[in-house]
Amino acid sequence: MAEALVLEEKNRLSLREIALADALGPRDVRIAIHTVGVCGSDVHYYTHGKIGGFVVTEPMVLGHEAAGTITEVGAEVTHLAVGDRVCMEPGIPDMASRATKLGVYNVDPAVRFWATPPVHGCLTPSVVHPAAFTYKLPDSVSFAEGAMVEPFAIGMQAATRAGIKPGDIGFVCGAGPIGIMVALAALAGGCAKVFISDLVDEKLDVAAQYDGIEGINVTRDNPGDVLRAATDGWGAEVVFECAGAAKSIQNALEAAAPAGCVVWVGMPVDPVPIDLVLAQSKELRMETVFRYANMYDRAIALIASGKVDLKPLISETFAFRDSVAAFDRAVEARPTDVKIQIKLAEG
Amino acid sequence: MAEALVLEEKNRLSLREIALADALGPRDVRIAIHTVGVCGSDVHYYTHGKIGGFVVTEPMVLGHEAAGTITEVGAEVTHLAVGDRVCMEPGIPDMASRATKLGVYNVDPAVRFWATPPVHGCLTPSVVHPAAFTYKLPDSVSFAEGAMVEPFAIGMQAATRAGIKPGDIGFVCGAGPIGIMVALAALAGGCAKVFISDLVDEKLDVAAQYDGIEGINVTRDNPGDVLRAATDGWGAEVVFECAGAAKSIQNALEAAAPAGCVVWVGMPVDPVPIDLVLAQSKELRMETVFRYANMYDRAIALIASGKVDLKPLISETFAFRDSVAAFDRAVEARPTDVKIQIKLAEG
Amino acid sequence: MAEALVLEEKNRLSLREIALADALGPRDVRIAIHTVGVCGSDVHYYTHGKIGGFVVTEPMVLGHEAAGTITEVGAEVTHLAVGDRVCMEPGIPDMASRATKLGVYNVDPAVRFWATPPVHGCLTPSVVHPAAFTYKLPDSVSFAEGAMVEPFAIGMQAATRAGIKPGDIGFVCGAGPIGIMVALAALAGGCAKVFISDLVDEKLDVAAQYDGIEGINVTRDNPGDVLRAATDGWGAEVVFECAGAAKSIQNALEAAAPAGCVVWVGMPVDPVPIDLVLAQSKELRMETVFRYANMYDRAIALIASGKVDLKPLISETFAFRDSVAAFDRAVEARPTDVKIQIKLAEG
Amino acid sequence: MAEALVLEEKNRLSLREIALADALGPRDVRIAIHTVGVCGSDVHYYTHGKIGGFVVTEPMVLGHEAAGTITEVGAEVTHLAVGDRVCMEPGIPDMASRATKLGVYNVDPAVRFWATPPVHGCLTPSVVHPAAFTYKLPDSVSFAEGAMVEPFAIGMQAATRAGIKPGDIGFVCGAGPIGIMVALAALAGGCAKVFISDLVDEKLDVAAQYDGIEGINVTRDNPGDVLRAATDGWGAEVVFECAGAAKSIQNALEAAAPAGCVVWVGMPVDPVPIDLVLAQSKELRMETVFRYANMYDRAIALIASGKVDLKPLISETFAFRDSVAAFDRAVEARPTDVKIQIKLAEG
Repeated sequence: MAEALVLEEKNRLSLREIALADALGPRDVRIAIHTVGVCGSDVHYYTHGKIGGFVVTEPMVLGHEAAGTITEVGAEVTHLAVGDRVCMEPGIPDMASRATKLGVYNVDPAVRFWATPPVHGCLTPSVVHPAAFTYKLPDSVSFAEGAMVEPFAIGMQAATRAGIKPGDIGFVCGAGPIGIMVALAALAGGCAKVFISDLVDEKLDVAAQYDGIEGINVTRDNPGDVLRAATDGWGAEVVFECAGAAKSIQNALEAAAPAGCVVWVGMPVDPVPIDLVLAQSKELRMETVFRYANMYDRAIALIASGKVDLKPLISETFAFRDSVAAFDRAVEARPTDVKIQIKLAEG
Repeated sequence: MAEALVLEEKNRLSLREIALADALGPRDVRIAIHTVGVCGSDVHYYTHGKIGGFVVTEPMVLGHEAAGTITEVGAEVTHLAVGDRVCMEPGIPDMASRATKLGVYNVDPAVRFWATPPVHGCLTPSVVHPAAFTYKLPDSVSFAEGAMVEPFAIGMQAATRAGIKPGDIGFVCGAGPIGIMVALAALAGGCAKVFISDLVDEKLDVAAQYDGIEGINVTRDNPGDVLRAATDGWGAEVVFECAGAAKSIQNALEAAAPAGCVVWVGMPVDPVPIDLVLAQSKELRMETVFRYANMYDRAIALIASGKVDLKPLISETFAFRDSVAAFDRAVEARPTDVKIQIKLAEG
Repeated sequence: MAEALVLEEKNRLSLREIALADALGPRDVRIAIHTVGVCGSDVHYYTHGKIGGFVVTEPMVLGHEAAGTITEVGAEVTHLAVGDRVCMEPGIPDMASRATKLGVYNVDPAVRFWATPPVHGCLTPSVVHPAAFTYKLPDSVSFAEGAMVEPFAIGMQAATRAGIKPGDIGFVCGAGPIGIMVALAALAGGCAKVFISDLVDEKLDVAAQYDGIEGINVTRDNPGDVLRAATDGWGAEVVFECAGAAKSIQNALEAAAPAGCVVWVGMPVDPVPIDLVLAQSKELRMETVFRYANMYDRAIALIASGKVDLKPLISETFAFRDSVAAFDRAVEARPTDVKIQIKLAEG
Repeated sequence: MAEALVLEEKNRLSLREIALADALGPRDVRIAIHTVGVCGSDVHYYTHGKIGGFVVTEPMVLGHEAAGTITEVGAEVTHLAVGDRVCMEPGIPDMASRATKLGVYNVDPAVRFWATPPVHGCLTPSVVHPAAFTYKLPDSVSFAEGAMVEPFAIGMQAATRAGIKPGDIGFVCGAGPIGIMVALAALAGGCAKVFISDLVDEKLDVAAQYDGIEGINVTRDNPGDVLRAATDGWGAEVVFECAGAAKSIQNALEAAAPAGCVVWVGMPVDPVPIDLVLAQSKELRMETVFRYANMYDRAIALIASGKVDLKPLISETFAFRDSVAAFDRAVEARPTDVKIQIKLAEG
């Protein structure tokens, strides 16, 4: 039995004892959790009890953005040691599946992902995890930053699949937490400049605090016009749609340059009409992303080198005993909130 | 003045004398046209007077799928000579544009394309064309095949952008002329096998006369099921949507394998709802195509080597004097019709 | 204890009883071996006792190109069943390594490969193997062909890494067994035509029995000249160097087209001078290959569909009891020998 | 007749009047030259009278790294105007060649390149150039920086062909001017960090003034060891060899990660032995570069956005009348010299 933040059912959270598997396999590590970020999906399970076909039918521990310290290593683990500061990739695929062998383990249908029913999450003081999905943090990277690697990895996946070429002009539709992660990854990943659009100035201001990111308020300006004005009429070579709304999807297509790329990151609730003929007239490539694969090493490298600074995006940190309050704050997020975190240990 | 097949206005064709530019520049060639294929777009201008924003407001010569013999070469032309049998790429970009410099001259907004208003087509005995877009036919390739290079180039563009890997399983939605061109290009381009779907058995039979192509009648079978059954549940690595209909678009997404590619070839009349979340769950790449660029050399190479045999797809050949009849036949196409051609010269 | 073909030491083979591990793990299968091909590396261990740093210091069972029938499946195996006809990928990586997670398990330093010291091979009537690296053969693919999947996979790896575009002109230097496998994979993988060069006419004749493959005897013709003559002076878009000799390496670079690709398949005994400036002047991409990863499914698909016919390349088949004779024949191979196989079971 | 810096013959420069073509075609612009950088190739023509097969047999104006102001535009030029501050791409291909149509105009054999015999360079107060290869400078980019776009474009070409993924670890062999340009392009182009090696500490110090670039003195440390120590034993995902020396080439191969990329930028005087088997054991991709194509827009975008600061690399600026002294300084370059420039106009 261990204490954990448990989603009992839709709209009901409790911090209580729950029985969790804790057997340590030969290639596993045990980790004392230090910091856990609250993700939009955690909040969605809290407020809706489900995401698409994933329905919470039994009490489930929440949390999947975590960093901590190794307290025990399995007999065959060689690259990690007790005391190592680490962050963890929350999805564990079948290592022998066709998708995994191809290097795209994120699309393995058998993947088990923290805090996705029926798999428990990591908002509990100690977890067991495969060493292969546990990544050492350099000294210069804090636990709080370590717990940001997971959402940043989504931005990294989008930036990687975009196939950014050095000096591309980027455009991100939607300045929510994922949009900002994508913008930072695209900028660090080779864009000369990244434009980002939203309806809300406060969100744009959060993004625009970074050199190289420029906001477009769509209530005042048309993104396609802004992008063409900035590029001698050419448009954005890489576009990332992160809002999932019909208008934003159209903006993405309109702002893209000939032979450019649009990455569909946002997930529309229902199928949205897409102007394929517009996409064809510019012969756009369109990529989709599903979580991430092989992004943790490189995400950590960018944070450690100082190219990407995620610290300004940590809006508030709650103690573990205040986890429910942390979630309630996330439900009623302020426009400037990017990430709410929960701290389970000192140091 | 030259004789030509002129679209006077919607629904009215005439074979008559018309004034056409025929000045030969230093890098141009003059070509005696031998064979011209009738394309769906020619027919659409005939029956609708427009395609999207391209409206026929003045009499326009039709035809853009052509082969012939060089009768004169400009002063600076070195790689072609009088007497060469050739086929011609119908779109001429601004050679100094940004798109052209990038190698994607097909998306240059300044491109001038035969039989696209206000540019005249090539259904006339002699035309002048830039040598750079005129391609020599090997002796083994007939004029009739030469006039098929243009539609086949669309299939080649789709197959090329799909990034087929050797041994991929392909799936083409729609067994119309373009669907068949795509299927042949995908098969020659590396697929182990190509499935093709349609509502009409006769069309599927035309496609399935080729080894390696297998038909799926969607009135009887679900393409996703067929593809998964053929691939141990994995799906098609490369999918080509060539029908542009909502149901076909959904079939394309459902039949695709994880991390696969869907190429959007068909042009829906209006924006169609697309299930982006389904595409994301498999992290699909989606490509679009707009005509073709740099495909003529390779299309001719595949025809010349015998890997691709387009001859069975030439359904009927009309004499130039019967051009209007040829178009009327194309308007009332039989299910087995793939290509109607018009022959302007003997040999 | 099981009977096996054992390399006792350099130049000494015996067919005898030897103790082999045969425990079946939950994700393993047991396979009754039917056919094993003799590979150049097997022969090299026989005649030299080593390959590079891999030295035979203890008796080792040879053989790694195998097909057979499943006789037992581990408790967690779901996609294979007793009685399935299969072929096996001989290298088993650490499934949790960084390389494996990236999809390039072939370059995992921890890979264990059949008949590579100190790992035993499969020239023995029964082996245990991970189900994840065991591939079902369609009914239309014989055991003999199944045992050819391994060498063909090398050709597939080369063709895949070349990034062949539909209609490319290919050139293979060296018409030995690997060169022919590469040529077949390149042709099936999208080339319009593949030229292949060698010093020996008999080898070229074996290759040129396939439509689309044309031989160049380098004692009579210069490959660069032949390729340019066949391509209006452009050269081969994809080149595969499979001989590893200095002259052949230079031929590869000279025959490549501007912006083309050279795949280095052959392994020179010592570092060879390479004319980098020549490669740079055409801005060539150069790829290397190391065995293969994720090629078995697609290799089998091409054989099953009939696009690739490997049967004419099986030069002679020996009974298991004549294994030593099979190896001696392979040592003294005739110019027309491509593959010698050993058959361990009837049917 | 115009004043120009003329290489009369090997070792003899003069600033004198010379007859230069100055007819303005309809798609050309006339440019008042403001700043010209001295390139290693200019210096090599000065000291050796040739580079490879390019031999100076008649007096030739030097200089190809230039920025200036438009003074006249041809009748058909639309995107540039008198008074625009610009920089110029020095190579002009045949716009109708096969290479140009493919987007790789840099490998068009017909390219005419400033200060490459028999083509005059731009060290003269006014030149005529095609508008398509003339690029507008934003107000924030100085003429001095504009004249740095040419060498930086080489770094951009290398970084682009490397296919850098966000967060890659880079390694550059050789901290000469080109090595530093490559390092900056790789860092801006997505690398988390770039290591650079050289024999000379002063050169490494110039490179290491930039955040994210770290020097390795090969007289003290082995680059492979340093890279592996920095990457948990994995190595550099992208390596750029910029020295062209045998030892450096071997270092490049040793430091590369499995499945990594080595870009051969340096041009060895003679073919150098390359350890292909080492490259194969890691299945490396190897790219080559030849000048650049389509890099000016993106190079300028990176400079304008502030991601790349080239100003610290301008070591000294000479007046036009002191051009010979500028060249003599470049011949006797100090270790910290990266770029010597010549200024032809005020402002």
